Amino acid sequence: MARHPNSHGAQTRSTIVRAAADLASVEGLDGLSIGRLAGELAMSKSGLFAHFGSKEDLQLAAIEEARQRYVRQVITPALAAGSGITRLHALCEAFLSYVERGVFPGGCFFASAMAEFDAKAPGPVRDRIAECQQQWMTTLERAARDARAQGQLPAGSDPRQLAFELEGALLTANWYFHLYADPGYLSRARRAVQARLAGEATAAGRRALRPAPQTGQAGAAGDLATQREQ
Amino acid sequence: MARHPNSHGAQTRSTIVRAAADLASVEGLDGLSIGRLAGELAMSKSGLFAHFGSKEDLQLAAIEEARQRYVRQVITPALAAGSGITRLHALCEAFLSYVERGVFPGGCFFASAMAEFDAKAPGPVRDRIAECQQQWMTTLERAARDARAQGQLPAGSDPRQLAFELEGALLTANWYFHLYADPGYLSRARRAVQARLAGEATAAGRRALRPAPQTGQAGAAGDLATQREQ
Repeated sequence: MARHPNSHGAQTRSTIVRAAADLASVEGLDGLSIGRLAGELAMSKSGLFAHFGSKEDLQLAAIEEARQRYVRQVITPALAAGSGITRLHALCEAFLSYVERGVFPGGCFFASAMAEFDAKAPGPVRDRIAECQQQWMTTLERAARDARAQGQLPAGSDPRQLAFELEGALLTANWYFHLYADPGYLSRARRAVQARLAGEATAAGRRALRPAPQTGQAGAAGDLATQREQ
Repeated sequence: MARHPNSHGAQTRSTIVRAAADLASVEGLDGLSIGRLAGELAMSKSGLFAHFGSKEDLQLAAIEEARQRYVRQVITPALAAGSGITRLHALCEAFLSYVERGVFPGGCFFASAMAEFDAKAPGPVRDRIAECQQQWMTTLERAARDARAQGQLPAGSDPRQLAFELEGALLTANWYFHLYADPGYLSRARRAVQARLAGEATAAGRRALRPAPQTGQAGAAGDLATQREQ
């Protein structure tokens, strides 16, 4: 999609897509007009058009930027934290940490995008958002499945159901934290995740769930909070 | 706000706000331009302006219409279903039924509105959405508190935490049901609600939770599904 293969052009494009992803997390992907973004970046509309031929191209580039940021900020550190139930807990904590640190100014980019497009007609933007959400749910589900295979969750455990319920705590924390500017909702989500995992885990699973730090607010991957976006 | 106190004017205004609330559930409250709505209703923009002087007036009227519809479709039937844990379960089921029946074409109006405005600057529209969400959470919390007072939940139960976790299942069902057009997510939410309530309930609480019908999909207030919007 980059029409400027030289390094200056690539750098400009990268600046634009980062700003676009940030703006979309607050104003929505439909609020992402080329004119508006040009204003924010003090660029001409024609300069922006040289990089993105259409609003849809810009939206898809913003989604790709957001996906890469999400992988760096949530997925990669959590996958490094361990396997099975430890990983599942780390994925949840990495998500809450990413919301808390304001990796996107408007909260989770994908939560906003899903809420914006869930009821709209199919199209490339909506399809891409649905794929990204599916990848996230599959990542949670796979960790739950591994935990079951490792005997950390009982044989009758339903990995998709568990992923769905954990996602509920995470999404709700994202919305309410921003709506009421109240970090107490992040603590509620941490309690919910911990209780849900401990409640279903076998004795081996409970041993694998590292105890929360003394604040009672940070979970297994609390140290992720130090891994800030550059 | 109605500038046409006569009955024809009131009827026109009512038609406009119903259409506005429906449209906003799909396109967002910011997508609710007077021009667009005029096009949908085959009215002139000036005719619409006679009822709503500004976009903000129209947005606030759509929220009030949505609030009343929510009360009729979710709150009132659930409050009639009983008290304590029965009511708490009925509130959750009434919400899921309201999503399932498509009371708003774009899914829960307030979930969409919260997602759209959670990270935006304060203002009358955002404030009103935050108040409505707070009323809903307080309704859930009060039912949980009553359940605790009635001995259906243990003395150490945290009504706000329980309300938060139930809300997580409901919101997530709303988004995923629409994103993937898959009613299985409503079933997952019903399972989550039932398990969460039964898991925390005392023996008296579990007796008060009516058993789910044979499908395993409808909860205490499954008969709400027959109470359709006229």
